[in-house]
Amino acid sequence: MNQTNRTEIATLGEFGLIKHLTQDFKPKNKSTQYGIGDDCAVLSYPSEKEILVTTDLLMEGVHFDLTYVPLKHLGYKAVMVNLSDIYAMNGTPRQITLSVALSKRFCIEDMEEFYAGVRIACEQHHVDLIGGDTSSSLTGLAISITCIGETDKEKVIYRNGAKETNLICVTGDLGAAYMGLQLLEREKAVFKGEKEIQPDFAGKEYLLERQLKPEARRDIIEKLAQAGIKPTAMIDISDGLSSELIHICTQSNVGCRIYEEHLPLDYQTALMAEELNMNVTTCALNGGEDYELVFTINIADHDKITQIEGIKLIGHITKPELGCGLITRDGQEFELKAQGWNPLKEENEEI
Amino acid sequence: MNQTNRTEIATLGEFGLIKHLTQDFKPKNKSTQYGIGDDCAVLSYPSEKEILVTTDLLMEGVHFDLTYVPLKHLGYKAVMVNLSDIYAMNGTPRQITLSVALSKRFCIEDMEEFYAGVRIACEQHHVDLIGGDTSSSLTGLAISITCIGETDKEKVIYRNGAKETNLICVTGDLGAAYMGLQLLEREKAVFKGEKEIQPDFAGKEYLLERQLKPEARRDIIEKLAQAGIKPTAMIDISDGLSSELIHICTQSNVGCRIYEEHLPLDYQTALMAEELNMNVTTCALNGGEDYELVFTINIADHDKITQIEGIKLIGHITKPELGCGLITRDGQEFELKAQGWNPLKEENEEI
Repeated sequence: MNQTNRTEIATLGEFGLIKHLTQDFKPKNKSTQYGIGDDCAVLSYPSEKEILVTTDLLMEGVHFDLTYVPLKHLGYKAVMVNLSDIYAMNGTPRQITLSVALSKRFCIEDMEEFYAGVRIACEQHHVDLIGGDTSSSLTGLAISITCIGETDKEKVIYRNGAKETNLICVTGDLGAAYMGLQLLEREKAVFKGEKEIQPDFAGKEYLLERQLKPEARRDIIEKLAQAGIKPTAMIDISDGLSSELIHICTQSNVGCRIYEEHLPLDYQTALMAEELNMNVTTCALNGGEDYELVFTINIADHDKITQIEGIKLIGHITKPELGCGLITRDGQEFELKAQGWNPLKEENEEI
Repeated sequence: MNQTNRTEIATLGEFGLIKHLTQDFKPKNKSTQYGIGDDCAVLSYPSEKEILVTTDLLMEGVHFDLTYVPLKHLGYKAVMVNLSDIYAMNGTPRQITLSVALSKRFCIEDMEEFYAGVRIACEQHHVDLIGGDTSSSLTGLAISITCIGETDKEKVIYRNGAKETNLICVTGDLGAAYMGLQLLEREKAVFKGEKEIQPDFAGKEYLLERQLKPEARRDIIEKLAQAGIKPTAMIDISDGLSSELIHICTQSNVGCRIYEEHLPLDYQTALMAEELNMNVTTCALNGGEDYELVFTINIADHDKITQIEGIKLIGHITKPELGCGLITRDGQEFELKAQGWNPLKEENEEI
């Protein structure tokens, strides 16, 4: 948080604050008829488009830790995780609403930082900020974003379309965001209270970037369209590969086999896992927050998909009775388990 | 909160909880192609419709106090305040997303109560629950709702269409929700800790209902359409009549005069204001949370509007240089002032 320049939010008031923070956001999409400034935003989509809607609520202390997450990065990431859901339906994001509740700990300069990150994410993905809500909170920061996107009717990709013999593909690499989180948490613990010492992240920049500044995979959606490949099922990886694959298999009523040796891993992820004495395959399967895409394709698209950089084949879809399994390097088979969110795992403080 | 039956949320986990709470919500609108269960909801609107989007973030301790607000009422009201924004654009609400973050203080039975209120509101207004997010919070309850609606392109009503000589109309009565809040706050203070004594709300039921169970004015939108009246500007009253009228006048570049003697007041509101030694006109102007509609119409619609029950003429639009004024019963003129939200007014606790 900004300690040098500190302007209290009360100096602007609610309406003044909203105006101040959103004045540089100008709607650019044709579908945005009217943005901020009325009871509702007004959108206009042609009838051949399906409209996609996704939403996320991020709470300080649960989803982010401002000890090590800069507010600008937080704004960027909060938008990005929503865009990722739109791309996972094979859509194009067009608009977001952004609601923020903040305690008196935050000043106008903090919110400027946060909105600067939001703006960069919006500009990179040609998304309009069309509305929201700003209010106070007794403790901490709460952020709610709803993203609206579009896709042609015949192009929507659900989780439930995977078929037996389909191939399973994953983009980028896995587990790095989780390793980045472990690294930040470790350095936070080590250096707590010792202001002179700066944590040493040399050689681990990629892990930090994956945790602090994830990128929604618009490039992949574009490349698949160019190659004429329409995945049969798709989902983005927010809770970890295992959890997402189980969603696809359950909803498609199929099973799957993926291969440990084909899981895409970055060198830094493997090194960091070793340093922390963790199993890197477990990190790749359950790490979460990678915001990569996992999707299934018809076997006929095999040759086309191998031409596209940044996509890796990791396995195939099976009959439902075979369940969801991982084949290890030494040929053993393990059942995939979803981790999911569980409030009991959090160190919640009661009020 | 439910103290007799208490099932911890962890017994279901995230996905189990969402499924449990949303299983009774079945999409009914034609525009809802796909609801809960994928990365995004999928909507399909005909191209002659404009799509309306509004969102609200409600924080425990700031927007609601669970000491006296039952969770079922809270669920109902959280939906209603969003529907009100859609009606204020002359639209029909169709879908909502609902995100909830909750601390371990809450159990499954609490969430069932909350969702029961959400469901009643959705059913009454034929709105589909299409998605959302459920997660944990370190302290208290946070609720974020986004509502999506539709209206014919030529029927959207903005805040900026008021013209000189237009008449100003308001629905229902004003100030009762604020009086209800004062009453609840007073009884909370008086009876704190004394379990045997029940607060006495006899004769004040209307005030409580207006605070705890506001109703979005779909009926008015329908009546205006039937009468062939299209307001030139419209807004819903969430922050108080003064604040909303100033929005209309600023955005329409006009002024206004409203008359104290024409402000619609319920008998209970007047009585309660007297009991609390407050000026009832101030309550009506600045009370907030009435969720009534204030709108302007062409003078040619005067006779038609007086035929509609539940709508009152309170003044007229003027040249911008005259500003926004209230004419009191004794003929004096006062400038209208917006109160708005100001975080400094809250008794915020720092973390």
